[in-house]
Amino acid sequence: MANIKDVAERAGVSVTTVSRVLNNRGYIGKETRKKVEEAMAEMNYSPNQIARALQKSQSYILGMIVPDSNHPFFSELIKYVEMYANEKNYKILICNSLDQPEKEARYLNMLSENRVDGIIMCSHTLDVDAYKQVSFPIVTFDRIISNQFPYVACDNFRGGELATEHLIELGCKSLLHISGPLKLDLLANRRADAFKLSCMKHNVHYEVIEGSNDNLTFEYFNNLIKNKISENLPKYDGVFCSNDIVAYALYLFATENGIKVPEQLKIVGYDYHSFTRMLQTPKLTTISQPTNRLGKVLSSTIINMIENKDKDTINNTVVDVKLIKGQTT
Amino acid sequence: MANIKDVAERAGVSVTTVSRVLNNRGYIGKETRKKVEEAMAEMNYSPNQIARALQKSQSYILGMIVPDSNHPFFSELIKYVEMYANEKNYKILICNSLDQPEKEARYLNMLSENRVDGIIMCSHTLDVDAYKQVSFPIVTFDRIISNQFPYVACDNFRGGELATEHLIELGCKSLLHISGPLKLDLLANRRADAFKLSCMKHNVHYEVIEGSNDNLTFEYFNNLIKNKISENLPKYDGVFCSNDIVAYALYLFATENGIKVPEQLKIVGYDYHSFTRMLQTPKLTTISQPTNRLGKVLSSTIINMIENKDKDTINNTVVDVKLIKGQTT
Repeated sequence: MANIKDVAERAGVSVTTVSRVLNNRGYIGKETRKKVEEAMAEMNYSPNQIARALQKSQSYILGMIVPDSNHPFFSELIKYVEMYANEKNYKILICNSLDQPEKEARYLNMLSENRVDGIIMCSHTLDVDAYKQVSFPIVTFDRIISNQFPYVACDNFRGGELATEHLIELGCKSLLHISGPLKLDLLANRRADAFKLSCMKHNVHYEVIEGSNDNLTFEYFNNLIKNKISENLPKYDGVFCSNDIVAYALYLFATENGIKVPEQLKIVGYDYHSFTRMLQTPKLTTISQPTNRLGKVLSSTIINMIENKDKDTINNTVVDVKLIKGQTT
Repeated sequence: MANIKDVAERAGVSVTTVSRVLNNRGYIGKETRKKVEEAMAEMNYSPNQIARALQKSQSYILGMIVPDSNHPFFSELIKYVEMYANEKNYKILICNSLDQPEKEARYLNMLSENRVDGIIMCSHTLDVDAYKQVSFPIVTFDRIISNQFPYVACDNFRGGELATEHLIELGCKSLLHISGPLKLDLLANRRADAFKLSCMKHNVHYEVIEGSNDNLTFEYFNNLIKNKISENLPKYDGVFCSNDIVAYALYLFATENGIKVPEQLKIVGYDYHSFTRMLQTPKLTTISQPTNRLGKVLSSTIINMIENKDKDTINNTVVDVKLIKGQTT
């Protein structure tokens, strides 16, 4: 492969001149620039970004750690993060933690060794301590690590409130919330907080059943419903689910067991990702998290940190959610 | 951040010794190794992989260009490619071409500048000529570029044959195939070839309607059905769709318009990705492309090329498909 010396020779100029053209630095005559660019094109020269990264200590690579890049929510988030990062010339390295702390720790370490410019952290199985030694920019999705790291989140409390108030307005008297894992201090837990508070405020009976984060699949939630919820399901007239996959599994279980949705049981989901939007029977009532907006803010936050545009301020961003009325309420 | 000199000083050894420990090269006494490793741990030292990449001319990064990382087929493929690549210590850079030739070309160029070790090419809007100047390993999914580049594909011909023969065995007399774009010479076109040949062999009337690859969304296929297929739909008693999203859209259109599936119209899809597996009404009859196996073979093919394990042979891999019987036939 041609190097910078070959290009200089072909163009009849010095290596310094070629370097100036490449880095767009210092004065270069129009004619000279043209000669250099032609020589680069003729020789199929592409500047070695790795060498430049080393020189500038910048790789223009962002690591993004997600629980599962195939989950419809994260798959959509990755798409938008990549789209906006690409506009700013950054690339995205994808890492699947599969919600295993060892994998998450190994990826953090690997990304640090590879000198990524920053990390977008969407997988949360490690304790906050694990982040103390990290010496480069991190932005988290839906989790507060410390006031050193900005976070981007949807308004989880508002989401929980919207869902619960909707069920209560429709006349529900006994509500269930199927939550995510509550043991780690995640912002998504505020959905459960808002659920409880709204129920108390309106004097509505409620219960919470906790799901795990080891597994976000349809099969997992199907089993959860069969083993932990099925017997007591007739006790409730409304269920607020922490994601659309469990909402869909619950809808199917109810209708298969002769419980009419929404007449006897009202169901609200959470996410409104590509699966939910494509699903036509039923159209789920759900809370929409705008992945497009989230992706844009995650990208711009980490890039601003890297480029030191916000040296003195840590900007956390909370993105609005809304209720999408479907056929399950 | 601590560098190799700091580690050497702390451990009381030479830089060469630390380097030997890092690269596992040359004889190192057990005691010395322990001292160096302790010093690295104490100083939170992580070797600079970018510097090592430059020295070794290897980045351990693979580029993966897909039309849309949020499409359920590619999202699943990415997950498995990443999983297997990670076992071999490689990382995956994700690029969404959105099926735009300019974006695809820009990504090819960007990945080349960043000295990725190789590219897994799953987006195919560029002509074969665009690949002539590429000087590093590329493996393609479902496309033959030239005999310099290996491909990994599912057995598209067999898939088309299985789907069509299934419809004919069930008594269909007039078949439609909704294909992908046929203008580029893609291996997926063999599904249409097999469809036509099977129909001819059994003397069954057939037609083919071509979809575009600009858009793989439910909305696109919904409009395609309304604008190009709806009027003539009663002419057919079986449709072989080139993906599960169009199959689902067709099922919904038919049932909404009083056409009974499968009694009056039988539908076979293609892919059996996470959306299809999660969808319960209806369970689609479809052809399964095993993304797990495809991801493993794509990873191992490109890594073998990079590590020169198969210097003299280009290994193309064709992965088996199978018919999944659902409720739409």
